Amino acid sequence: MASNTMKMLRKFIEFTTQNKGFDRVCDKIIPVAGTPGKCKFSLKVDEGHLNTGGTLHGGLTATLVDSLTTAAIMTAGGSPGVSVDLNVTYMKAVKEGETISINAEVLKLGKRLAFTTCDISNENGILIAQGRHTKFVG
Amino acid sequence: MASNTMKMLRKFIEFTTQNKGFDRVCDKIIPVAGTPGKCKFSLKVDEGHLNTGGTLHGGLTATLVDSLTTAAIMTAGGSPGVSVDLNVTYMKAVKEGETISINAEVLKLGKRLAFTTCDISNENGILIAQGRHTKFVG
Amino acid sequence: MASNTMKMLRKFIEFTTQNKGFDRVCDKIIPVAGTPGKCKFSLKVDEGHLNTGGTLHGGLTATLVDSLTTAAIMTAGGSPGVSVDLNVTYMKAVKEGETISINAEVLKLGKRLAFTTCDISNENGILIAQGRHTKFVG
Amino acid sequence: MASNTMKMLRKFIEFTTQNKGFDRVCDKIIPVAGTPGKCKFSLKVDEGHLNTGGTLHGGLTATLVDSLTTAAIMTAGGSPGVSVDLNVTYMKAVKEGETISINAEVLKLGKRLAFTTCDISNENGILIAQGRHTKFVG
Repeated sequence: MASNTMKMLRKFIEFTTQNKGFDRVCDKIIPVAGTPGKCKFSLKVDEGHLNTGGTLHGGLTATLVDSLTTAAIMTAGGSPGVSVDLNVTYMKAVKEGETISINAEVLKLGKRLAFTTCDISNENGILIAQGRHTKFVG
Repeated sequence: MASNTMKMLRKFIEFTTQNKGFDRVCDKIIPVAGTPGKCKFSLKVDEGHLNTGGTLHGGLTATLVDSLTTAAIMTAGGSPGVSVDLNVTYMKAVKEGETISINAEVLKLGKRLAFTTCDISNENGILIAQGRHTKFVG
Repeated sequence: MASNTMKMLRKFIEFTTQNKGFDRVCDKIIPVAGTPGKCKFSLKVDEGHLNTGGTLHGGLTATLVDSLTTAAIMTAGGSPGVSVDLNVTYMKAVKEGETISINAEVLKLGKRLAFTTCDISNENGILIAQGRHTKFVG
Repeated sequence: MASNTMKMLRKFIEFTTQNKGFDRVCDKIIPVAGTPGKCKFSLKVDEGHLNTGGTLHGGLTATLVDSLTTAAIMTAGGSPGVSVDLNVTYMKAVKEGETISINAEVLKLGKRLAFTTCDISNENGILIAQGRHTKFVG
């Protein structure tokens, strides 16, 4: 039986990607596990996710951090808010066909600000990128 | 007569966006001005650039920082390299139909690392986001 | 005749550094120029500012970004607030005896959040570090 | 019996702080636990660590991230290198007399670049700041 958090994550992906907005680039993301404020997703990297060098595009990585930490905030009871600061450190390239895991976690949900972190790993559990995202939710 | 930098920027946008990779999200970007290491682009924000709140998606903003600072590095004679660190601070929302200016600038092009900054402003010259992008180009 | 901003900056350095708190590490900073929200300082790097490698310590560089952008916010009429996000990119080492220029600028002073940037250059005008600092001032 | 990592950490704190350089601000730091690339320290916040508002200075927090992730890199067999990018997100104030825990961890030690993260928590295990630090170690 799916938990409420898992239902919320599926709805989040469906609602944000089934339209003509930018989130359509996240339409292949699959929610894998979730408790309030701590959510795991997977994504099989395909042609549409690549840079011209043939590896996962850094802009998409940043988009995953942005969108999936927002999902995590919502599972913790916060509003989606607006972005304040986002950062990403890139550690390893990912090729087409690899499946990545995205772990988004709320570090603190305050009255005005929400603080989150996001780990992205490859199939071998190697960290390929880590990001942080601060949002104004007040 | 178009400068060499302008020719290079047009080629960069054409080459990166005319394929099925992630850079297709940048296909509406127009190079406006450029000298080696200092490049200006414009983008009219349309439906495909929006978040579900109806404003410019933070993931696209990060993608603009990523891709257009890479273009700037190339105009300065650097290789596109790979991303190391990227950060974005978001200051103001942008609505559909607004045209934004993206100014990407190389701060330092070293043997191993390239350091860049990127200002994104709206039509009134108000800064809407600022980012920095460090790449390994060695 | 000193402008009000210059008087405010001198008072800021005096008030923050003439006590036993951490800001004492900034006691050699000299305000050089200032208009509301845009302030320039100089610092002659001495033994107390160095890392064990004999160059300007990255922690002090971050402290300069933190403290002097706070001064800039105050000259723009904002409260000192509390730090939310700070980042620094390091581009070049600085040795003992060199004098650095620190340019702190308010990008936006909102009701709740203040956004600032800070350029640090050496005597030859070469950028040695750049940082950004977001504060909650609401 | 102290592990090699613990011996290395004690030597690191001793070597870096027992001189007239900027690291003297870290002289009260106590290594608590360590395995290669994963190190824990504690610090009792005193008057010398405060900002003028009477809480832990953000510049010192950044210095802790900078210096203690460097220690972690060295326990993993890396060279201290030079800073490339550092960021800190501040989540909660800390008062004089509180003891904080600093957990510095190497995410990846490459041939050229080292990637690290740092969690700083208060006595109740509440995260008060999180930072990331990329160094060039090549």
